[in-house]
Amino acid sequence: MGTLQLFPTPYTPAPPLDIPFVQQQQSLARYSSTRTKRARGRSQATDGENKAAIAWDAGQELCVEEIEVAPPRAHEVRIEIYYTGVCHTDAYTLSGKDPEGAFPIILGHEGAGIVESVGEGVTKLVPNTCSSQSAPPRVSLIPVLRSTPECKECKFCKSGKTNLCGKIRATQGKGVMPDGTSRFKAQGKDILHFMGTSTFSQYTVVADISVVAITPKAPMDRTCLLGCGITTGYGAAVVTAKVEKGSNCAIFGAGCVGLSVIQGCVKNGAAKIIAVDVNDGKQAWAEKFGATTFVNPTKLGKRSIQEELIEMTDGGCDYTFDCTGNVGVMRAALEACHKGWGESIIIGVAAAGQEISTRRMTPPSFQLVTGRVWRGCAFGGIKGRSQLPALVDDYMNGNLKVDEFITHRETLPKINEAFNAMKQGDCIRCVVDMRKL
Amino acid sequence: MGTLQLFPTPYTPAPPLDIPFVQQQQSLARYSSTRTKRARGRSQATDGENKAAIAWDAGQELCVEEIEVAPPRAHEVRIEIYYTGVCHTDAYTLSGKDPEGAFPIILGHEGAGIVESVGEGVTKLVPNTCSSQSAPPRVSLIPVLRSTPECKECKFCKSGKTNLCGKIRATQGKGVMPDGTSRFKAQGKDILHFMGTSTFSQYTVVADISVVAITPKAPMDRTCLLGCGITTGYGAAVVTAKVEKGSNCAIFGAGCVGLSVIQGCVKNGAAKIIAVDVNDGKQAWAEKFGATTFVNPTKLGKRSIQEELIEMTDGGCDYTFDCTGNVGVMRAALEACHKGWGESIIIGVAAAGQEISTRRMTPPSFQLVTGRVWRGCAFGGIKGRSQLPALVDDYMNGNLKVDEFITHRETLPKINEAFNAMKQGDCIRCVVDMRKL
Repeated sequence: MGTLQLFPTPYTPAPPLDIPFVQQQQSLARYSSTRTKRARGRSQATDGENKAAIAWDAGQELCVEEIEVAPPRAHEVRIEIYYTGVCHTDAYTLSGKDPEGAFPIILGHEGAGIVESVGEGVTKLVPNTCSSQSAPPRVSLIPVLRSTPECKECKFCKSGKTNLCGKIRATQGKGVMPDGTSRFKAQGKDILHFMGTSTFSQYTVVADISVVAITPKAPMDRTCLLGCGITTGYGAAVVTAKVEKGSNCAIFGAGCVGLSVIQGCVKNGAAKIIAVDVNDGKQAWAEKFGATTFVNPTKLGKRSIQEELIEMTDGGCDYTFDCTGNVGVMRAALEACHKGWGESIIIGVAAAGQEISTRRMTPPSFQLVTGRVWRGCAFGGIKGRSQLPALVDDYMNGNLKVDEFITHRETLPKINEAFNAMKQGDCIRCVVDMRKL
Repeated sequence: MGTLQLFPTPYTPAPPLDIPFVQQQQSLARYSSTRTKRARGRSQATDGENKAAIAWDAGQELCVEEIEVAPPRAHEVRIEIYYTGVCHTDAYTLSGKDPEGAFPIILGHEGAGIVESVGEGVTKLVPNTCSSQSAPPRVSLIPVLRSTPECKECKFCKSGKTNLCGKIRATQGKGVMPDGTSRFKAQGKDILHFMGTSTFSQYTVVADISVVAITPKAPMDRTCLLGCGITTGYGAAVVTAKVEKGSNCAIFGAGCVGLSVIQGCVKNGAAKIIAVDVNDGKQAWAEKFGATTFVNPTKLGKRSIQEELIEMTDGGCDYTFDCTGNVGVMRAALEACHKGWGESIIIGVAAAGQEISTRRMTPPSFQLVTGRVWRGCAFGGIKGRSQLPALVDDYMNGNLKVDEFITHRETLPKINEAFNAMKQGDCIRCVVDMRKL
């Protein structure tokens, strides 16, 4: 079976677009040609060549095994996944701490691939055709899968106030397609979908509103990361907080999301961009993305991180971002905000049963009553189908860092290594090649 | 000693401006004439005629007794208080639950009166002169005292983002004037100032930035209430939340602040205005101020108030307001917000040691990550010196309800009755006549 490995594993971070696009597109095209013929010949992905990493139960390693992927039904799309990222949210659900988590399930929600086939009523996504005459043949539509769909019809999408879409939320949360059933089967059992995406499968079926077509010129081993972490962080700074020029910002947690918040702050002209992380190894990373200062809160002695930040910024930060999901950090982030106007943006989801709260010597609501704001966002507030293509353009034009996030690469059979790498501090993002077995 | 009682005690709520202004002003003028002569004759208010309600210790009743009030120093103003409101915040501090509370202290932070004398450097407030030739003589400047000063010079005032002023915060929080000393003395002991106002004294000394001059035409027994509760609620809806036309709003707690939030929601054209209170007696009050629906959360059976509100508003409220200071209510108010954009405004300050938090079956930060916002405000976000005069104008023009809030009236010697009345559900605001002994 033909495969394409764009970079050796493990991957060394490289400057943006270090491989000429033409060369990459030619490779993709060649590969796609072979694969597409095979895919076309099947009415159902049941020929034993489809593998997925299945999470059979909480706390266990993923099992890479054969899986049946039923054809897309009305308003559904079957995608051949080329690349997927591995995100902390996948690990969170796999750990069993996610109260919505159910098993067996196929995780994964940062993916890129091509449309293999479409169900009835899908008009805007055409499998294996060119979106433009100038694009390379067969590498036609490149969807990025997202856990935040956009139907453009529901109360949410029409509100103009949020990127959340209500259309398939209920069934998506239950791990099934909008008609209440699964498209995945392994060992004779139905396997659940995850976040409406399940990118840890070579083929997946998703709602058409979960797919966005982006320029075929963009390399999928990078754009897959726009499906969650990078977009989330960047959007949190640019779309949700709308960081203003000259602002003082603090970012708690310098992982993928935090680093992307930093680049959003840089983009919007923030003055002080303070990265906060307990791992000193993140200092170089934070500075690479534009942080002006790095603080390790475990090295402040008796001083709290909020006290440190308030002094560093003469009264507190204009914006703080929690990218950790740790409730103690969320509290510190709020308390590090400037009285009167500071906003703290919550990006990470805390584990079930934990409280986010604020209590000090002053009354608990005092932090908010004195003019601070606690704001949350999902996917950075970015509307996937409307706004994601522009981010891809920004990347292609060198205005959005993506390549720099990739520290590790794995193949599908070694996907558990990606989870192990993520637990270590030196991994920002691991991209998994889903076609190499 | 001449007194002026505008209404019999107890007061029956009356329509706005039910007493002609001319008649009222003439009464005030006559009264003021007598008082002013007396005040002019003193260099220091030590002649035994000055009484104040002193809180000698937490949890005790106030003691009305003689007090010395030193003359104003530089950038200070000595005010003769005509009327004061009694607010839950006074009761909160008196209870001993306020971690900043210290004793002995003179409470009170909703006051109106006249400028008796000014210290060095005070140029914009002139004692006992007419602000305009058309105004009645001697009833010249009518300051409303506020706990939220506005210096127009500090980082906060210049930010354009907040109504909080940092200039005298440190000393105000400690119960002293900006130079670190008190102007009050009783039984040979220094008595602390409260919130920079201490309106439970016939004479008080405040920083000039805590005083706003308003039209002499406004009746002080009503405008005193603009010093806190009414302005706070109205501002929370109009200035802080910026409630939009057609919005669905829920107000938790239908006391003075909550009722004023309701009138702010009416002013901004909200569609559904849902008042929530455990006291059914508040239904008539809420409807009088413009609530479209009243819900008693204790009468919903197994259904939570957030579930009820989410159903009533087809997904949740656009804006909710906590006017209770109860942390459980704060949580319910956040959770009753519409996913994606709902904002919950915290107005009440919870007791020390209580947590505000959100925890349900879903992860705690889920409420915020799914697009809700927790926002706090003090004094409704209204800038006292810049914006309060316009509220007084609104009142004078019949566009802001104030008279309707007054359910009880007391005199200074019976000020403890005002606290007792406040603990009962039928008291919205009690105005205390500070000149009647």
